[in-house]
Amino acid sequence: MNTPAIYHRPDSEFAYLYKDNLMHIRLRTARGDVKEVGLLHGDPYTLDTDHWQDQPTPMKRYLTTDLYDFWTIEVTEPFKRISYAFKVTGNDGITIFYGDHGVFSFEKNVYDSPDNYFRLPYFHEVDRFNAPEWVKKTVWYQIFPERFANGDKSNDPKNTLPWGSKTPSATDFFGGDLQGVIDHLDHLTDLGVNGIYFCPIFKAKSNHKYDTIDYMEIDPAFGDKATFKKLVQECHKRGIKVMLDAVFNHMGDNSSQWLDVVKNGKDSKYADWFHINKFPVSYKDVGFEQAKNISYDTFAFTPHMPKLNTANPEVKEHLLKIAKYWIEEFDIDAWRLDVANEVDHEFWRDFRRTCDSVKKDFYILGEVWHSSQGWLQGDQFSAVMNYAYTDSISKYLIKKQIPIEKMVSDINDQLMLYRDQTDQIQFNVLDSHDTARLLTETNDDKDLMKQVLAFTYLQPGVPCIYYGDEIGMDGGNDPECRKCMVWDKSQQDLNLYDFFKHLIAFRKDNQKVLSEGEMVWEKICDDGLLILSRKLNDTEVKIILNAGDTPKQVTTSQSVVLSNLVTENNHELTVDPKGFALVK
Amino acid sequence: MNTPAIYHRPDSEFAYLYKDNLMHIRLRTARGDVKEVGLLHGDPYTLDTDHWQDQPTPMKRYLTTDLYDFWTIEVTEPFKRISYAFKVTGNDGITIFYGDHGVFSFEKNVYDSPDNYFRLPYFHEVDRFNAPEWVKKTVWYQIFPERFANGDKSNDPKNTLPWGSKTPSATDFFGGDLQGVIDHLDHLTDLGVNGIYFCPIFKAKSNHKYDTIDYMEIDPAFGDKATFKKLVQECHKRGIKVMLDAVFNHMGDNSSQWLDVVKNGKDSKYADWFHINKFPVSYKDVGFEQAKNISYDTFAFTPHMPKLNTANPEVKEHLLKIAKYWIEEFDIDAWRLDVANEVDHEFWRDFRRTCDSVKKDFYILGEVWHSSQGWLQGDQFSAVMNYAYTDSISKYLIKKQIPIEKMVSDINDQLMLYRDQTDQIQFNVLDSHDTARLLTETNDDKDLMKQVLAFTYLQPGVPCIYYGDEIGMDGGNDPECRKCMVWDKSQQDLNLYDFFKHLIAFRKDNQKVLSEGEMVWEKICDDGLLILSRKLNDTEVKIILNAGDTPKQVTTSQSVVLSNLVTENNHELTVDPKGFALVK
Repeated sequence: MNTPAIYHRPDSEFAYLYKDNLMHIRLRTARGDVKEVGLLHGDPYTLDTDHWQDQPTPMKRYLTTDLYDFWTIEVTEPFKRISYAFKVTGNDGITIFYGDHGVFSFEKNVYDSPDNYFRLPYFHEVDRFNAPEWVKKTVWYQIFPERFANGDKSNDPKNTLPWGSKTPSATDFFGGDLQGVIDHLDHLTDLGVNGIYFCPIFKAKSNHKYDTIDYMEIDPAFGDKATFKKLVQECHKRGIKVMLDAVFNHMGDNSSQWLDVVKNGKDSKYADWFHINKFPVSYKDVGFEQAKNISYDTFAFTPHMPKLNTANPEVKEHLLKIAKYWIEEFDIDAWRLDVANEVDHEFWRDFRRTCDSVKKDFYILGEVWHSSQGWLQGDQFSAVMNYAYTDSISKYLIKKQIPIEKMVSDINDQLMLYRDQTDQIQFNVLDSHDTARLLTETNDDKDLMKQVLAFTYLQPGVPCIYYGDEIGMDGGNDPECRKCMVWDKSQQDLNLYDFFKHLIAFRKDNQKVLSEGEMVWEKICDDGLLILSRKLNDTEVKIILNAGDTPKQVTTSQSVVLSNLVTENNHELTVDPKGFALVK
Repeated sequence: MNTPAIYHRPDSEFAYLYKDNLMHIRLRTARGDVKEVGLLHGDPYTLDTDHWQDQPTPMKRYLTTDLYDFWTIEVTEPFKRISYAFKVTGNDGITIFYGDHGVFSFEKNVYDSPDNYFRLPYFHEVDRFNAPEWVKKTVWYQIFPERFANGDKSNDPKNTLPWGSKTPSATDFFGGDLQGVIDHLDHLTDLGVNGIYFCPIFKAKSNHKYDTIDYMEIDPAFGDKATFKKLVQECHKRGIKVMLDAVFNHMGDNSSQWLDVVKNGKDSKYADWFHINKFPVSYKDVGFEQAKNISYDTFAFTPHMPKLNTANPEVKEHLLKIAKYWIEEFDIDAWRLDVANEVDHEFWRDFRRTCDSVKKDFYILGEVWHSSQGWLQGDQFSAVMNYAYTDSISKYLIKKQIPIEKMVSDINDQLMLYRDQTDQIQFNVLDSHDTARLLTETNDDKDLMKQVLAFTYLQPGVPCIYYGDEIGMDGGNDPECRKCMVWDKSQQDLNLYDFFKHLIAFRKDNQKVLSEGEMVWEKICDDGLLILSRKLNDTEVKIILNAGDTPKQVTTSQSVVLSNLVTENNHELTVDPKGFALVK
């Protein structure tokens, strides 16, 4: 047996409270190396009298990656505390004991010693990672406010260009605003989405508003607080949740605080609000290499975005006041945190507490592109922008960069990085204002786009539609992906729109199994046939897709609910290349 | 190469800020499997332009356990943020890339992809695990107040027995108090200790005071607040730090809050202060099995210690007020937290902030007997009672239960569970009020006791002497280990006392290398010869010990500073069984 490959970490995504007093425990072993795993467990104060080694509870071999098998189990204990260890039997017939002090032969002096067991010393609800139910039921829609709709010409910035008159440059303005969103809420309810993620709406200089000047003000080109209040109310009336974008890593260099530092140097009362390496503050913005000579810490090498010192109590108070204000006064449901990974954990812990103190089941979504265990222990974020997850899908289905086994391995690997309830509310984005649009990624192939979407909607996390994708908008990387929304129906792809409506309805109709059901990879074939089933108790939904070059025949006893490029004949499905069927 | 055995976890003890902007990074590989490891690293925003793969920084093979080699490196980056990955070459000649998405062939499309790297997105001092310098310099002395010295007969409890008149039972009182400690501070300064860890001193019924009645009052049998204030001041005058024991997991059933619950049931205003499963509260205290029928959650199955609901805001406020009070009003330097593992993390995070807000470099020591990564990330405890570490020493040197390689493996394993700066302030206890005394453990073998002590004092953590060990007191498990301190010099072992003095002086003289120096296992021989060296820059101290049955010859160019059962002849040492030499 490959014992050095065995891994478990107490008090982490390998051992945690799932709901109520139910605990989920995982064990990692080398792929294909282990025959069975049993959990020895009981109350930490009765080990001396009980005999756990006589009755290990069998664990289930669940997900497999290129290197590992993951074993899982759900357990509880009457006194809300547990000692546990693993009895592992290899395919070579060897049985070992694995616990808090490592690997041992499976012998009495080992399994009778309480110190050899892992512990979850008490089941604390307050430490449990809380996944709000409403998030699981949400299909998000991302709006880049400057480009969604112009509902109020009176607040248009100077030099506003006619709506949709050109592919945007980095500095163009087209007059999109909050009234425009209110005007088009019926579009969203018709589509079926029930959550809006707004890119920043606070006062800032640029069109993207990530260079905040004042977090307490709506950007005047977007409207005013009354309009925003109305927008939230109208959303809530329609059952739509509202998420705002908080840029707390840095400020814009037009903010009053930064301008004060520029003017007064180290005597500025805001001098410690930023990370300043040398006074007076200066930069030479003449290219990438020179940008390294900035005398203060910035976002990336962008001198216009000086990094905030979030450990400074005044800064913290200022930002947390903002966090609270928009929840209390405007009743928003979620914050999306820009460049969240570069802000300190201690700040985010305070942020979490602040939000929780004013609204129950508040959703906090961090922008983190890499592994995020450090932020997803329950004390900080609810979820992250799940690029790492959807990238695997895109690398196989769209870019054909990896084989099918690698996609499945990567997906399983990502799922095992976090607690089950975290996976259920991860934010699955296929595109955004920071990436090329999905349609462009697929090289304008709407069949492929549909297949990718259907597969993504079958995953545990919650999907997000980037505005305009649903009517066939395209665009490469920023700023191309930020074109004006097309409202002229004759210019919209209504077939695609209809597809989105059906897919969203499918997601919502089957939300529970899609959120909480287990993943069963029924077929992963080199020729491109993929069948993924999601199962929860007696419910089962399934995707059958063909990522290969030739048609595939599949027999199913279930009914096709939604499909593309599929013909059905008496339970015999023919799935053409790029086709898929969702069956139930 | 055994790639499934390779492990790294970003933002954990595998990758963390050590001091200033220096980062320590670790990698785990299967033992003896890997030839070399190089770190590829750079600024996350320059990966596209730099070429890290051309210049991996070699990592050092550091500690080895029975299953693993651990590789380490210290790095920094000019912009306080890092992307990094590992280039690993096996003894089989194969080279792989290991990063945020797992193991790959070492190829251009892999190492050129920024997403494949681990990240520490920004070096935040506020998130760095802080190890106070003063703790590293401390040798602790644990006092069980009821048994250390009776300095004030007027506060003796009823039925106080004559001092040292018998081996204590679980319920005896002998009249020890705080004035007794003040009276004997010269003993401690003469010995050389510079920190006292007091078992609980708050109002409680039992002699051990773990069943708190009132956390805001000194137990009247121990003295009053004025006496305690004087005690702390006298300690500080002598350079001795003071640590109190906080029992926040549970209360005594004689506390006013619990009595109110007993009386008023679910109408008590304290009903939610505890974890009550059924009203009215009741128990049948007639044996272990019946104790399981307690109608409320308790410490273990002890009905006299109802568990506190530390998630209740009132309870939290009450306890944090206490935490703050004894620091602010009495200037204590540290809290030791009883049954710390059974209290919620969220509570301890608040506790940490509260203590830090009133005193800089405050030390928080949790009682956790098992792996403690969940508490030692920097946001909760400074250290834990390091039983797991010293147990390995005891299992080999005293109990002969494990071979020498297993002790070394266990020690290395424990060191790799936590950050380097955490290891430096771990609380290394060989005995306490909860265990048999060291002398009794060694079967009254003072030579063996000295060897165990010398070896323990060479470890990175800080040692603690249980009162009376230094003068040869013995005793089995509680209550035997809680005998009255022997003050009659003719009854004290003055030779042993002298040994302790020299050992403590050695520890303090060589504190920096013993805290921060690397561990170099120079010899680990089956015949019992063990040489462990500690190295920091040009400084090196070393222990040579003989745990075998026959004398061992060792040549050294260094000078013997302290030894037992060793004869020296022109740099040729003969170390007898149970002997040791500390050389420099």
